Amino acid sequence: MEADAISNATPTEEMNGAGNLMDFLDEPFPDVGTYEDFHTIDWLREKSRDTDRHRKITNKSKESIWEFIKSLLDAWSGWVVMLLIGLLSGTLAGVIDLAVDWMTDLKEGVCLSAFWYSHEQCCWTSNETTFDDRDKCPQWQKWAELMTGYNEGAGAYLLNYFLYVMWALCFSLMAVSLVRVFAPYACGSGIPEIKTILSGFIIRGYLGKWTLLIKTVTLVLAVSSGLSLGKEGPLVHVACCCGNLFCSLFSKYSKNEGKRREVLSAAAAAGVSVAFGAPIGGVLFSLEEVSYYFPLKTLWRSFFAALVAAFTLRSINPFGNNRLVLFYVEYHTPWYMAELVPFILLGVFGGLWGTLFIRANIAWCRRRKTTQLGKYPVLEVIAVTGITAVLAFPNPYTRRSTSQLISELFNDCGALESSQLCDYYNSPNMTRPVDDIPDRPAGPGVYAALWQLSLALIFKVVITIFTFGMKIPSGLFIPSMAVGAIAGRIVGIAVEQMAYHHHDWIIFKNWCRPGADCVTPGLYAMVGAAACLGGVTRMTVSLVVIMFELTGGLEYIVPLMAAAVTSKWVADAFNKEGIYEAHIRLNGYPYLDQDEFTHRTLATDVMRPRRNDPPLAVLTQDSTTVEDVETLIKDTDYNGFPVVVSRESERLIGFVQRRDLTLAIKTARQKQDGVVSNSVVYFTEDAPQLPASCPQPLKLRRILNLSPFTVTDHTPMETVVDIFRKLGLRQCLVTRSGRLLGIITKKDVLRHMAQMTNQDPESIMFN
Amino acid sequence: MEADAISNATPTEEMNGAGNLMDFLDEPFPDVGTYEDFHTIDWLREKSRDTDRHRKITNKSKESIWEFIKSLLDAWSGWVVMLLIGLLSGTLAGVIDLAVDWMTDLKEGVCLSAFWYSHEQCCWTSNETTFDDRDKCPQWQKWAELMTGYNEGAGAYLLNYFLYVMWALCFSLMAVSLVRVFAPYACGSGIPEIKTILSGFIIRGYLGKWTLLIKTVTLVLAVSSGLSLGKEGPLVHVACCCGNLFCSLFSKYSKNEGKRREVLSAAAAAGVSVAFGAPIGGVLFSLEEVSYYFPLKTLWRSFFAALVAAFTLRSINPFGNNRLVLFYVEYHTPWYMAELVPFILLGVFGGLWGTLFIRANIAWCRRRKTTQLGKYPVLEVIAVTGITAVLAFPNPYTRRSTSQLISELFNDCGALESSQLCDYYNSPNMTRPVDDIPDRPAGPGVYAALWQLSLALIFKVVITIFTFGMKIPSGLFIPSMAVGAIAGRIVGIAVEQMAYHHHDWIIFKNWCRPGADCVTPGLYAMVGAAACLGGVTRMTVSLVVIMFELTGGLEYIVPLMAAAVTSKWVADAFNKEGIYEAHIRLNGYPYLDQDEFTHRTLATDVMRPRRNDPPLAVLTQDSTTVEDVETLIKDTDYNGFPVVVSRESERLIGFVQRRDLTLAIKTARQKQDGVVSNSVVYFTEDAPQLPASCPQPLKLRRILNLSPFTVTDHTPMETVVDIFRKLGLRQCLVTRSGRLLGIITKKDVLRHMAQMTNQDPESIMFN
Repeated sequence: MEADAISNATPTEEMNGAGNLMDFLDEPFPDVGTYEDFHTIDWLREKSRDTDRHRKITNKSKESIWEFIKSLLDAWSGWVVMLLIGLLSGTLAGVIDLAVDWMTDLKEGVCLSAFWYSHEQCCWTSNETTFDDRDKCPQWQKWAELMTGYNEGAGAYLLNYFLYVMWALCFSLMAVSLVRVFAPYACGSGIPEIKTILSGFIIRGYLGKWTLLIKTVTLVLAVSSGLSLGKEGPLVHVACCCGNLFCSLFSKYSKNEGKRREVLSAAAAAGVSVAFGAPIGGVLFSLEEVSYYFPLKTLWRSFFAALVAAFTLRSINPFGNNRLVLFYVEYHTPWYMAELVPFILLGVFGGLWGTLFIRANIAWCRRRKTTQLGKYPVLEVIAVTGITAVLAFPNPYTRRSTSQLISELFNDCGALESSQLCDYYNSPNMTRPVDDIPDRPAGPGVYAALWQLSLALIFKVVITIFTFGMKIPSGLFIPSMAVGAIAGRIVGIAVEQMAYHHHDWIIFKNWCRPGADCVTPGLYAMVGAAACLGGVTRMTVSLVVIMFELTGGLEYIVPLMAAAVTSKWVADAFNKEGIYEAHIRLNGYPYLDQDEFTHRTLATDVMRPRRNDPPLAVLTQDSTTVEDVETLIKDTDYNGFPVVVSRESERLIGFVQRRDLTLAIKTARQKQDGVVSNSVVYFTEDAPQLPASCPQPLKLRRILNLSPFTVTDHTPMETVVDIFRKLGLRQCLVTRSGRLLGIITKKDVLRHMAQMTNQDPESIMFN
Repeated sequence: MEADAISNATPTEEMNGAGNLMDFLDEPFPDVGTYEDFHTIDWLREKSRDTDRHRKITNKSKESIWEFIKSLLDAWSGWVVMLLIGLLSGTLAGVIDLAVDWMTDLKEGVCLSAFWYSHEQCCWTSNETTFDDRDKCPQWQKWAELMTGYNEGAGAYLLNYFLYVMWALCFSLMAVSLVRVFAPYACGSGIPEIKTILSGFIIRGYLGKWTLLIKTVTLVLAVSSGLSLGKEGPLVHVACCCGNLFCSLFSKYSKNEGKRREVLSAAAAAGVSVAFGAPIGGVLFSLEEVSYYFPLKTLWRSFFAALVAAFTLRSINPFGNNRLVLFYVEYHTPWYMAELVPFILLGVFGGLWGTLFIRANIAWCRRRKTTQLGKYPVLEVIAVTGITAVLAFPNPYTRRSTSQLISELFNDCGALESSQLCDYYNSPNMTRPVDDIPDRPAGPGVYAALWQLSLALIFKVVITIFTFGMKIPSGLFIPSMAVGAIAGRIVGIAVEQMAYHHHDWIIFKNWCRPGADCVTPGLYAMVGAAACLGGVTRMTVSLVVIMFELTGGLEYIVPLMAAAVTSKWVADAFNKEGIYEAHIRLNGYPYLDQDEFTHRTLATDVMRPRRNDPPLAVLTQDSTTVEDVETLIKDTDYNGFPVVVSRESERLIGFVQRRDLTLAIKTARQKQDGVVSNSVVYFTEDAPQLPASCPQPLKLRRILNLSPFTVTDHTPMETVVDIFRKLGLRQCLVTRSGRLLGIITKKDVLRHMAQMTNQDPESIMFN
């Protein structure tokens, strides 16, 4: 066998030059090189296929002007896809925001001048609104007022209460029904599945058109129903669906699972960008939390997509404040070193909340999976919605939408603020500057608000555990942030009042003189929100950057960072897994996470066949018949088979995929004369000249991967894990001194890692 | 040979269990596992060694409280190193800023009240300064005034001119002398070398204490001398030196080249963070431009180091404006879609400048390397400084420091600005608001400034080409930004005047009514600066984020991005290489860049031995004598040798490093009785019982790497390149059906890549 320049990396490649195999088909086998549902892709093969495609286009582009233009279009298609993703996901986010606003308010009342206006929009157009009481205007009527004419009294309250619950039940029933009937994949936050898909797994339909449509609609319904869930995670899913949709426009992306995942990574960045109005944070979120393979080219394109999405959303201007987010805040006071103590305490709270939430939610979700409960998803949603609505209405802080609540908690009290939380005693001779109001004693409204907030905190903590994981779109960011913001605001008010009443205490003495504005309770709310979000998701850089983009000042990065670091450390001390990894494991997806594998095992300990197993199913290069192959395929369910020189020498030649083998034999039996059950299958370069009496041989070198990945049996598993992770392998062959000993698949690696960390190895379902 | 659980991944590991080799030394061979200067490290081995260390500490930590505390300290050492790096690099940056400010002004005059005050500081303390003429105060005297008493007239001008040139020569002479005598590695920007080091190359002393000290001092001298260079690139080098310094405090980092590089990546982020006051931009710069292996843990720590550095610098407050940078700007006017045309033109200019600069600078540097010129570095520096100073003094825009120039060009003209660039005709009935001044007609000062700026542009373009690469610390960011800022400001003023005088033109009609502030020339300067910097360095995301952190508003990201994208595309159309890659190639460092390799070659085309070469130098597992090995080591200069079962079967067993082999034989000859020249070297698990007459065998399985990396001869080179890049290999063995065919080293890969892109393959010097 003389070395020559045949690359057989991909079966779709044409053969070139003389002396090559004359294969029976000029066309590549149909479907060879595609993947089945719930299977892992081969990153190296995808990359190699893309290079071939690129090479072909580059070569052709020199032939004619038209081909040159085509090659330019191909080179630009990545940017076009990014632009389209940005435009569509920005638009969808704007539409969702507007619809949620309107439908949330619809639970309480309706705008008489135009029923499609939300409460705020309704009162904008009103001239009678005074600055003091922005929320009240005659055009906006609560249901009781509209139906009975009374706005006050127990009857009106009860009617409003009843209709609030009814609307909520109606919205959530619609949401869960739509999900059940049209797109079961539209439920949940989608981020665990997207992480799995980006790591190289196929879940057909998860990012399909139906999922996109239904998720968008049901997301609006679910959020409007007042359930304790957010739209941020699902927006990432929606953006990824957009990405997948636009991939199908270009064969460069639609036919290559590796390239498609580059687009999806960028789409995830666009999703976070519109969810929080934080394009840089979105890119870092995609890099840190979601993506698996993130080359620099993707970084730049993600940034572009995230920016386009952010500007599209801004031009829609759903919040009417020319900002991308509801949460935009500006603080006017610096923070002081002594305040790091409460900030770190908030971090500890966030870490504990994260741990509690993940444990309780996973336990509940496991219960749902394993018991009768899982069989009645509609009933479950209705029940949880009912409980949520019934408990939420009496408390003004839970009645409104969670994002409005967070927005109020983040914002500092201006001098003219009318809300209960800002009911401070103003000193009569205060000149009322807009910024920089000195610390004031709290009035009765603040104390009432504190009680209500405490109740809201307990309510949110409990109900969120049961809400996340139901069969409707549900994000985690907003409820987690709400829990943290409530806790933070309470701590903030406590510190503020302490500083006001005891400014002679040694801890306040240095930085808090009477009449100064020393404590910003809104900042505490923001720090608390960051801590809780960090505890649940274990985000770090992206979390801080997202929060930084909300405040726009480098000034407040240190408190945010202190809380995020503490929260992560505290939560990691209990369990290293974030909520997404926990859900990935719960669902048994084959996800190889980025944690370091530090155990001292070798490839030989992990490879199959194990000591007492039957020998490895192999093919020989020139002595297997078609029938043997078919029997092997029927008897085993392996995804591929190593090909060796002979059973005696066991020297490895290559690897052949089960799918390719099945397709090739099927096609050959149909189209090629003389291929019968006892035809010999040849994987060698040249089949020998057989006498005419022998059946026609079947030459299959073309589907043979001549460069299978091998390691020796002495390779430490940590290296093997590293190779699987970095190169995105599906399987790896184990040899010793050139002899084939066994095989390690991604599933084996995952099972071994689970064993080593004493987890249940049987939970890994797919291959 | 039964498979058992011996891991021999690292020679420093202890042997465990029974039935293992009884080696002649309990201690590991000294120095085994370290690297020689100008050699490539083995990332997998380093990682594996770190895991072993970690495992050992974790096991020990269960033994006693003290060991537990030690393990905690070890776990925290990474954060401690980051904190120290942040503190030191922030402090150094602050000191450098203050010293540069003072010494730059020293060229023109001195502060009488305190000679260590810079011009600005001197006049701050003065009471007589009026708002209109901030720069003039009696305490600050120019040299001529101090020496002769006259401040005006040709004599005073000439004396000032002469002293300016003298100071410049004096500073640069000191700088180049210090570099020559004490630390030759302190020259240049350092980024190409840091990129190479981070990719896994050893350059001893490059990040040493002397380099740190001398680079800091000479950087101040070089910048103060008025040469066309900046301190940003060298600050990255300084920060990396700090990182290396603190690594030596912890054996975790000092003894592991892989872990050390994680720290250095974070240090690079801290360097950029203090150079621009942009912590997020710094992290992204490290990720995008400098680092090679950047796990998520490093991302988070880099961010921490960058923030600490930024806050340290801020607390030093070198610019007296509570900002981290001289360039901080705030614009008050939005930009309009029509302005994208000039922005994109600036991008084209930036791309062209980048191409021109890289070509000319590389040609000049190559000339310096190959001709007599390179032998007189001191003379070269003196000559360039002389020319720079003589040409710079007459023009007010080149006389001052480049960063002051950029700062002035970036800033928009306020109503009360006294500078020449802001000499507009104010309408007499203007109410002079602070912001939002309408466009005004340009006065004679502006036209004079335009001429001077044009001359300054030509001067900077030419002199920078000759300056970068001299034997003094020299950064590229500031000169590139200056070129772009000048061009941008000129374009900006032109557009502004066009819009003022022709606001009825169709292009201006829609957005620029008379009396409106439509065009911000400062923004054009910033866009131009981004474009030129992008053209030279090919940064993308980090560039935009750094600029975003300077302006603080998402508003201006689109213009910056448009310019950065255009500039990169234009420059890439000429040559894909940025200036750092070009310098890496010029110096022949073995750097495997992240570009995709798209050629259709196979491992067999690249491996050695080539067709007519002598066969591969291999060792056999049980039939080579010590003498044979010594001869082989003497006769060849390979870094390692494959070990095969026998020369006939050529089945691969493992790989042994030349350095380890040499050390092992040397130690054995000294310490082990009976090891003589014709002792047989055994790499097998058990050496046979030899008769007493035979010399004592030498058992070397311990230094044998039993898991060498192999690929088949049919593996496409693109996969091989990917493997080398992602796993950081030094070499890879090539097999076919289990038989060893050849070897591919990193050098072979680089040479092959250079051949494929028609570059000079012989420029790769090191291995």
